[in-house]
Amino acid sequence: MLKIAIINGPNLNLLGKRETSIYGTESFETYLKKLETKYPKCTFIYFQSNIEGEIVTKIQELGFGNVDGIVLNPAAYTHTSIAIADAVKAIETPVVEVHISNITNRETYRHESYVTPFCKGSIIGFGLKSYELAITSFLI
Amino acid sequence: MLKIAIINGPNLNLLGKRETSIYGTESFETYLKKLETKYPKCTFIYFQSNIEGEIVTKIQELGFGNVDGIVLNPAAYTHTSIAIADAVKAIETPVVEVHISNITNRETYRHESYVTPFCKGSIIGFGLKSYELAITSFLI
Amino acid sequence: MLKIAIINGPNLNLLGKRETSIYGTESFETYLKKLETKYPKCTFIYFQSNIEGEIVTKIQELGFGNVDGIVLNPAAYTHTSIAIADAVKAIETPVVEVHISNITNRETYRHESYVTPFCKGSIIGFGLKSYELAITSFLI
Amino acid sequence: MLKIAIINGPNLNLLGKRETSIYGTESFETYLKKLETKYPKCTFIYFQSNIEGEIVTKIQELGFGNVDGIVLNPAAYTHTSIAIADAVKAIETPVVEVHISNITNRETYRHESYVTPFCKGSIIGFGLKSYELAITSFLI
Amino acid sequence: MLKIAIINGPNLNLLGKRETSIYGTESFETYLKKLETKYPKCTFIYFQSNIEGEIVTKIQELGFGNVDGIVLNPAAYTHTSIAIADAVKAIETPVVEVHISNITNRETYRHESYVTPFCKGSIIGFGLKSYELAITSFLI
Amino acid sequence: MLKIAIINGPNLNLLGKRETSIYGTESFETYLKKLETKYPKCTFIYFQSNIEGEIVTKIQELGFGNVDGIVLNPAAYTHTSIAIADAVKAIETPVVEVHISNITNRETYRHESYVTPFCKGSIIGFGLKSYELAITSFLI
Amino acid sequence: MLKIAIINGPNLNLLGKRETSIYGTESFETYLKKLETKYPKCTFIYFQSNIEGEIVTKIQELGFGNVDGIVLNPAAYTHTSIAIADAVKAIETPVVEVHISNITNRETYRHESYVTPFCKGSIIGFGLKSYELAITSFLI
Amino acid sequence: MLKIAIINGPNLNLLGKRETSIYGTESFETYLKKLETKYPKCTFIYFQSNIEGEIVTKIQELGFGNVDGIVLNPAAYTHTSIAIADAVKAIETPVVEVHISNITNRETYRHESYVTPFCKGSIIGFGLKSYELAITSFLI
Amino acid sequence: MLKIAIINGPNLNLLGKRETSIYGTESFETYLKKLETKYPKCTFIYFQSNIEGEIVTKIQELGFGNVDGIVLNPAAYTHTSIAIADAVKAIETPVVEVHISNITNRETYRHESYVTPFCKGSIIGFGLKSYELAITSFLI
Amino acid sequence: MLKIAIINGPNLNLLGKRETSIYGTESFETYLKKLETKYPKCTFIYFQSNIEGEIVTKIQELGFGNVDGIVLNPAAYTHTSIAIADAVKAIETPVVEVHISNITNRETYRHESYVTPFCKGSIIGFGLKSYELAITSFLI
Amino acid sequence: MLKIAIINGPNLNLLGKRETSIYGTESFETYLKKLETKYPKCTFIYFQSNIEGEIVTKIQELGFGNVDGIVLNPAAYTHTSIAIADAVKAIETPVVEVHISNITNRETYRHESYVTPFCKGSIIGFGLKSYELAITSFLI
Amino acid sequence: MLKIAIINGPNLNLLGKRETSIYGTESFETYLKKLETKYPKCTFIYFQSNIEGEIVTKIQELGFGNVDGIVLNPAAYTHTSIAIADAVKAIETPVVEVHISNITNRETYRHESYVTPFCKGSIIGFGLKSYELAITSFLI
Repeated sequence: MLKIAIINGPNLNLLGKRETSIYGTESFETYLKKLETKYPKCTFIYFQSNIEGEIVTKIQELGFGNVDGIVLNPAAYTHTSIAIADAVKAIETPVVEVHISNITNRETYRHESYVTPFCKGSIIGFGLKSYELAITSFLI
Repeated sequence: MLKIAIINGPNLNLLGKRETSIYGTESFETYLKKLETKYPKCTFIYFQSNIEGEIVTKIQELGFGNVDGIVLNPAAYTHTSIAIADAVKAIETPVVEVHISNITNRETYRHESYVTPFCKGSIIGFGLKSYELAITSFLI
Repeated sequence: MLKIAIINGPNLNLLGKRETSIYGTESFETYLKKLETKYPKCTFIYFQSNIEGEIVTKIQELGFGNVDGIVLNPAAYTHTSIAIADAVKAIETPVVEVHISNITNRETYRHESYVTPFCKGSIIGFGLKSYELAITSFLI
Repeated sequence: MLKIAIINGPNLNLLGKRETSIYGTESFETYLKKLETKYPKCTFIYFQSNIEGEIVTKIQELGFGNVDGIVLNPAAYTHTSIAIADAVKAIETPVVEVHISNITNRETYRHESYVTPFCKGSIIGFGLKSYELAITSFLI
Repeated sequence: MLKIAIINGPNLNLLGKRETSIYGTESFETYLKKLETKYPKCTFIYFQSNIEGEIVTKIQELGFGNVDGIVLNPAAYTHTSIAIADAVKAIETPVVEVHISNITNRETYRHESYVTPFCKGSIIGFGLKSYELAITSFLI
Repeated sequence: MLKIAIINGPNLNLLGKRETSIYGTESFETYLKKLETKYPKCTFIYFQSNIEGEIVTKIQELGFGNVDGIVLNPAAYTHTSIAIADAVKAIETPVVEVHISNITNRETYRHESYVTPFCKGSIIGFGLKSYELAITSFLI
Repeated sequence: MLKIAIINGPNLNLLGKRETSIYGTESFETYLKKLETKYPKCTFIYFQSNIEGEIVTKIQELGFGNVDGIVLNPAAYTHTSIAIADAVKAIETPVVEVHISNITNRETYRHESYVTPFCKGSIIGFGLKSYELAITSFLI
Repeated sequence: MLKIAIINGPNLNLLGKRETSIYGTESFETYLKKLETKYPKCTFIYFQSNIEGEIVTKIQELGFGNVDGIVLNPAAYTHTSIAIADAVKAIETPVVEVHISNITNRETYRHESYVTPFCKGSIIGFGLKSYELAITSFLI
Repeated sequence: MLKIAIINGPNLNLLGKRETSIYGTESFETYLKKLETKYPKCTFIYFQSNIEGEIVTKIQELGFGNVDGIVLNPAAYTHTSIAIADAVKAIETPVVEVHISNITNRETYRHESYVTPFCKGSIIGFGLKSYELAITSFLI
Repeated sequence: MLKIAIINGPNLNLLGKRETSIYGTESFETYLKKLETKYPKCTFIYFQSNIEGEIVTKIQELGFGNVDGIVLNPAAYTHTSIAIADAVKAIETPVVEVHISNITNRETYRHESYVTPFCKGSIIGFGLKSYELAITSFLI
Repeated sequence: MLKIAIINGPNLNLLGKRETSIYGTESFETYLKKLETKYPKCTFIYFQSNIEGEIVTKIQELGFGNVDGIVLNPAAYTHTSIAIADAVKAIETPVVEVHISNITNRETYRHESYVTPFCKGSIIGFGLKSYELAITSFLI
Repeated sequence: MLKIAIINGPNLNLLGKRETSIYGTESFETYLKKLETKYPKCTFIYFQSNIEGEIVTKIQELGFGNVDGIVLNPAAYTHTSIAIADAVKAIETPVVEVHISNITNRETYRHESYVTPFCKGSIIGFGLKSYELAITSFLI
């Protein structure tokens, strides 16, 4: 069994509630259940926070042997948080960065990521499937 | 009755305590009482936090029908928080941005605002009266 | 009675004629009549010009005691006219800057304003209501 | 018959007088006569001003049905006038931008044009023939 | 008889196939036939390539007396190819640059052209008519 | 059966030959055989070229119904080729961008990609596994 | 006798009225009288305008033999007017640029001058004495 | 007795756990004990948080007379937090900024500090001894 | 005997034909004969292409033991080709970069070279003698 | 009698020797003799050095009452020496900056001056007459 | 006994003479005497020069075993001298950089230091106490 | 006999003493002896200084007929000295710029050279052999 943590950054708790015509009405919690069914070889830990420092703390807690891999969607903090990037750099657990939308199609300030250089890899723009590809990256 | 939330960002809890020769000795709580008297057609919800993510969370809570309008002074987070900007963009309630001082007269890094593009409007530089103009914008 | 001047910059004489589906078919002159009714404590002087230097001259004329306040929408000259900014800085009458649309949502060259640092305050993005808020700023 | 307005910006009234070894001794008025002979299917309105705001006003006057097309050489205002660009954007008549010289061969500040994005097309560097190509663009 | 070469850059071979609702279903080859009819005083040589270096070579071949003029649409290479600009500079035949769309309305990286400074002139944004104006520039 | 094309850009033909201590001694052709075994539901078309324009042409050929998906590693052309980006934008087949190494850890000029905004998604930094994740993105 | 024109740009008509503690209460007209006394070998033509295009026109009028030299203080237009720079470049009469204050001590956007490269020389920061030094430059 | 607060920013709680070959295995808590022994004239208050806003709040609490000096290592927030800088500016207690490593030897985005301009002084690059020098700065 | 390859980039095939008053009428092929006479200890392989990818391929072919050194003049591709720089980096054979003219005296976009950091050395501005100095660098 | 020091920076000792067709064959020492004749009310101290620090030292020596004014031509050090600017700022004697040529017509790196903000005034582009105007500035 | 060199850059010889209301009337030589009393375990070598190259030479002389540490205040050369930075990098003796004032509060061009990356550490803004903290850094 | 001057900039006097594992233990003086043997047709003048202005003076002394060529390694002053560049420009003797290391592989601020545009040519990155190639450039 592979132990994988999924950490979601700010405003991702609105999934299923915000711009439902684009993102659908499914919450991430519901989607997580589907992941559990789809990836029976994995157990998942899920954490979401709007607070930068809480994400830092969670990455620290999980980063020294407690899980096999971290799937991290830092959302807005991707572009503003050196603290999260430092946490990713400090730990031993491999981190895969995911983004639901194609951030290069949006505002210029979303083009740079502090986190990417310290990640095992990055997956961008596949919608919710980005999470599945990140999980797959730990399985293959 | 119009339900209006006032959300203040970091260090605005020092109002009345910091640089009192400029800002006076009145705290925002005291000022809020005056607003209640001055705008009898409005009820106010007041929230202040130094924590970016708590402001994100509060905007989310108030943003789907709980209030008629949000008056937001993001203070320092105006220039550094994409997370707050994303929250403003995600919700349905109209948000009016206010600034007490004329931020274009200060450091260059205070000239750009992540929040403004997603607001109904912005009011800058009228001192505490900026809040009153923001409230007025929901009344006229 | 409060004497307030409203100065409009280039192309604002097209209001009611240009992009009527967005801006409506009401000209600023018609709108001014409504303002006179709505703010009985104020008398208004209205001036519009497409010529930068005429706006400079008008600001100079009104800036030494002839009116109690100036509501200035420099339109395109907001971003290109140091001459108008110098005039605002030189006079004694307080000037409030207004913009009908949210200029931070438009081209990058519309994000900086030469005028703002010398104004009493700025009101951006409330449509024609920006003018009313500016007038209110002199009344409260 | 096609009604075409030619609007020339600042210093173009010096044509035939300035640097005659390069530009020749022919004034634009003389050249205009030749155009009238060469394009018998067109009638021309000619306007030149050194004042930015007068060009704005002229574009507004001609821009709602009074002519079939405008040939605009904004000269120095190409690179500094958002007001003229706004006027071009506001009107209904198609505008073709022309430049006599190849502006990309000159100072860096002549490389960007505020006007181009709102024009039907741009013709650059063909000498006085740029005007003829602009007229042709309305005929073919 | 005037001998004119038309050189098209990358992806222009997709004309009539790509985004047909905008660009129509006519291929450039079909359009070329129309040009031959429309300009009986001209004979045309047509060359298209997706390969930067092949365009360089073709410009070299045609650039020393083999044709009277070259109409060049470098497409994407406009903004990235110093090699093509060097070829245009090196040859003796005059080159006129054309662009179908208004490139100043697109991504920022499409605003600068390496080629323009070495061309006889540039014609931008008239759709396929840009080619006709370029041909006209050799005839008048 | 899913038909997938893999297109590799310049210098990727050196795989297995260059810096073998890092990249190993396996060529892409050998690796491709493994992919065929690992993904029996897919048939693969493989194309590599050092020539930008040949990659443009291949994308055009495959882009209108001939394959179900394209896995594209533009290598050095990621950062310099608008022509390839235009081809990706022009076609109908979905394209997934892959990079073997974490390009954000390398020279600054490797941080921006012309191609990403027009891709279905991007997968960066997983070594050769990036290709497998790209293939997976078409299967899930 | 030397015929010298003094051309003053926008807001310089406020001299003696604006910030009198710094600039004094003497108007430029009064100062001009002193100049006439101090430089008996010169006759002066004085022109002030807030309108960029009127300054262009005046420079053109004086620039072909009507005066021996022009002393030009473009004020705010120093930094925004390519039109005035073009006029200075076009004429034959030598132009000396003057500034009352040390513009390098003020906002960054006052550090560059479009006009300087085309002037005979520039004199910056000597207060009203800058004009006297400019006149002297024509006398020595 | 001198009362000194030491405030550590994000990820400094990992000291002694992260990259132990470089930073050693001593935690900051253990190091603090040594400081207490080494500086018997000082009492220390220690605070660490990964949350930007909690650091703001702590600075506010300590900043009006509760301690004689604050030693602040904002870590990653040095480069991203205007909120912390505003707090340092707002309080009365002198703040000394410290950094363990030489931040000018690291990524470019670590070269600028929002906090420095409002500090009594900065001490950079002496390893843990940076704290001792900061304490010394309050003693001499 | 030393085996040396000379690789010339785009437009260098025009040597002797282009701007002959500056570059002379000697073609590179003729010049190569002189090199063979002047350096009897060397045998030369000569390759020129206008196609970026062909230069990449040639560098790859020669880069693993087939020659003792490569003299590379990438011409225009110096400033635009990461692909050629990657090829130079990937191979084992030392590469010396040469430029005929002093590229720092030309357009700004010719000041940076992608290739230089991966070369054994660079020789700039000695005319055709740059090649001889490059050859000498392999002999001394 | 007015005591004036003239300080010349690097390479100005070549005057009369370098590019004599432009600058003439007169050395500064010869020119100085003419100044002594022309300005009988002044005595001159002359100093030239190619060494930045010697100019700093000389400014310090003369800056506390030893002369009535300093005429400073920092030449190349205008654009690179903060040390000279600091010296000018530190002393009490007024300094007038002069430049022989119009530096805004030369390389971009000659457009900014570290020295100007601390000078009494600047005189640019009048040839050797710039010195005479500087001397005049102390006399009028 | 610890042997420590103090090297002061340009204009620091004016200490006690310049802006005495801010910096006091004490010269550095007087201050040095106090240091000798305060730090009996240290012997001091003092060197000041306005000449960049003399500072380079002094650093070289002291840098290979002659002293135990160097306290360096490069003053203006901090921001302009790569030569001094290279000397610091080349030697073996540890160098501590000090600045009397908080350079981040001054002109932008004083924000970057060439020297810092090669120093053992930097101490900024403590007034003359910066030197004492630097000395302490060698003692603790 | 050819008379050649070699001028070395700051810190090159440390050759053979600094980082001997990379640069070897040979001083430049010893190396110079080898050059004299290797190039019997040349006599050498050698000059090294850490002082920018002394290098300027030496270039001036040698620049009007005293030597046949100058080999100049400005070291750190390459990137900061306009004074040396001006000296190179002013003299008649041809100057060849050399660099021992590949400066494009080092800090960004070492990528631009003030000197290059005024040199006969530049030789970069061949270690001490760069000097030999520079000498060769005067011989062939």
